[in-house]
Amino acid sequence: MDDDLYEKGMKIRREVLGDAYVDRALAKSGPFNDPLQELVTTYCWGWNWGRDGLPRRDRSLINLAMIAVLNRSHELKAHIRGALNNGLTREEIGEVLLQVGIYGGIPAAVDSFRLADEAFAEIDAEAE
Amino acid sequence: MDDDLYEKGMKIRREVLGDAYVDRALAKSGPFNDPLQELVTTYCWGWNWGRDGLPRRDRSLINLAMIAVLNRSHELKAHIRGALNNGLTREEIGEVLLQVGIYGGIPAAVDSFRLADEAFAEIDAEAE
Amino acid sequence: MDDDLYEKGMKIRREVLGDAYVDRALAKSGPFNDPLQELVTTYCWGWNWGRDGLPRRDRSLINLAMIAVLNRSHELKAHIRGALNNGLTREEIGEVLLQVGIYGGIPAAVDSFRLADEAFAEIDAEAE
Amino acid sequence: MDDDLYEKGMKIRREVLGDAYVDRALAKSGPFNDPLQELVTTYCWGWNWGRDGLPRRDRSLINLAMIAVLNRSHELKAHIRGALNNGLTREEIGEVLLQVGIYGGIPAAVDSFRLADEAFAEIDAEAE
Amino acid sequence: MDDDLYEKGMKIRREVLGDAYVDRALAKSGPFNDPLQELVTTYCWGWNWGRDGLPRRDRSLINLAMIAVLNRSHELKAHIRGALNNGLTREEIGEVLLQVGIYGGIPAAVDSFRLADEAFAEIDAEAE
Amino acid sequence: MDDDLYEKGMKIRREVLGDAYVDRALAKSGPFNDPLQELVTTYCWGWNWGRDGLPRRDRSLINLAMIAVLNRSHELKAHIRGALNNGLTREEIGEVLLQVGIYGGIPAAVDSFRLADEAFAEIDAEAE
Repeated sequence: MDDDLYEKGMKIRREVLGDAYVDRALAKSGPFNDPLQELVTTYCWGWNWGRDGLPRRDRSLINLAMIAVLNRSHELKAHIRGALNNGLTREEIGEVLLQVGIYGGIPAAVDSFRLADEAFAEIDAEAE
Repeated sequence: MDDDLYEKGMKIRREVLGDAYVDRALAKSGPFNDPLQELVTTYCWGWNWGRDGLPRRDRSLINLAMIAVLNRSHELKAHIRGALNNGLTREEIGEVLLQVGIYGGIPAAVDSFRLADEAFAEIDAEAE
Repeated sequence: MDDDLYEKGMKIRREVLGDAYVDRALAKSGPFNDPLQELVTTYCWGWNWGRDGLPRRDRSLINLAMIAVLNRSHELKAHIRGALNNGLTREEIGEVLLQVGIYGGIPAAVDSFRLADEAFAEIDAEAE
Repeated sequence: MDDDLYEKGMKIRREVLGDAYVDRALAKSGPFNDPLQELVTTYCWGWNWGRDGLPRRDRSLINLAMIAVLNRSHELKAHIRGALNNGLTREEIGEVLLQVGIYGGIPAAVDSFRLADEAFAEIDAEAE
Repeated sequence: MDDDLYEKGMKIRREVLGDAYVDRALAKSGPFNDPLQELVTTYCWGWNWGRDGLPRRDRSLINLAMIAVLNRSHELKAHIRGALNNGLTREEIGEVLLQVGIYGGIPAAVDSFRLADEAFAEIDAEAE
Repeated sequence: MDDDLYEKGMKIRREVLGDAYVDRALAKSGPFNDPLQELVTTYCWGWNWGRDGLPRRDRSLINLAMIAVLNRSHELKAHIRGALNNGLTREEIGEVLLQVGIYGGIPAAVDSFRLADEAFAEIDAEAE
């Protein structure tokens, strides 16, 4: 893979998700997970997030909606954290999740609000 | 249901999707579909789109991403039209759909680009 | 597979979906599709529909909801036909699809109502 | 939103899910979750469950099937509880989940039976 | 149901998932779960896995990919175990899950790698 | 993006899907679709299909299963064609789709067999 894109992706990934989160993911990596780390960093973060066509706040809106509908809890919590770093307020995240309820169904919204509550509580605990 | 919310929803629905599209949907309605029209207008458009917490351009970003992942072709084409009315450019819609490919999988992006091509061609034909 | 269960399944399948529909499916079958026909008839219709635990009307309610959420258009239309044969009215089918909209999201309901309209029109045309 | 529909919805929600469950959901609510509570109570419970077109037992059948297929564990357990309150037996719930296995795939049934076992054990423990 | 197919299925199920896993599933079964056990053993394992058309290693490849996309964690871990018993290496399982990331979206791959890590750690612990 | 990976991907893509199919996709491309073509060729075909860890026949098995479950008709037909080019027989493709029925639900199998019938008929017509 493209080394420049990897470096660019790692920089964006750290800015959006935070060093602590990314360091934790990398520390758990080993020979089995290394290709996944390469794929995620180069392809999601370098290629996709590194494109100029949309600001990061827009990309967070899109990801919250998609990942809530795709029903991926761990990833949703990571991207809630990223969305706050990209300038969305908690209230705006709530608005996204209400719209998830309308278009993706009420159970998707109920689950996603519970995960948002958990993510906010974890962030508040770290800040103390 | 709430009559004020229905009226508010109908106004927003027409502004976003266009009178021609909404008139066509209503013309096809009858006793069987009337409760659906009431639900869509009041709940999606009045309650959700009528909330102040996010601007319409943000709501279009969210919907394009969700509806592409949910694999609903007719609705995706309608909301591509709505996204243009809400100020997104064709290039920005393309950016959303590339991100759909990364997080929702490549087949979702390939299908969604084909539908976007069709939607743009229909809009161009109407403009001639 | 179990021959008795196949025979039992074929009888139920014909009662629910109608001879014309089943004959059409079987006529299109050949060496490639035969194992699928065996699976569908024995497993879905013989084993599942042949169980005593729920009446057929209940099984139709369940199937309409699941197949609408699973986004399988051809199968939804077949099971709308089956639901009518099992005693559900058109109005009750509409109620199921409204509930699909609340729990599975509005695009699922909009698509499913359109398919129900098509199925009803086809049935009405056959009756003329 | 419509206050009458909210009141009607809260009454039905309490009858179906039980006061203890609903009180717990409301107690956890706050400014962030209040719009979700409003949405769920007014639209799911007031508008959808409050419609006359299907009895509550039918609505429970539909919801069990949909929520199992949608893969939402917390909501499935809540609606298993609701289904019992609406007159379905444990055996009938098992029949629904077997049919989920046929039309939604075996992994959906295996997961849903495990959740039903958990829900039944919790209910039995409360009854002691 | 077909008794021969049940016996054949039980033999294959034990060979693929291991006696310990299957004994645990059966021990938890009772009147409520018995029809599910019958369904799983006869149809998945007897009918599907018992067919000659594909070797077991191929069936494991297919199942890992499907169950990862279907987002069923418990079943994915069981079939990772089965895949190893059917001759896939850990590296090959990683390759499947990378491809899941491309076609099913990155969150599906991230979740699935985490589950594979857990499954491998459990297997290693049992081997000590 | 990485030019070498693009070239490698284009070569594999043409070998798997055939020149006629790829030329048609590229001919329809333009400024709007170019980033998608770049993404698909470089990541799917260059990075994923270009990895040594699994032979192409295995990658086709995985893709047929995933894309059938993901409910993407156009892509399924393209990958049925690719699977034949990668050495799977029609009978083996049928086996994959039967297994899709067991784990992904019967409607997924019924739809996928119909699409396979269409793909085979198109291929036979081209061969005449």
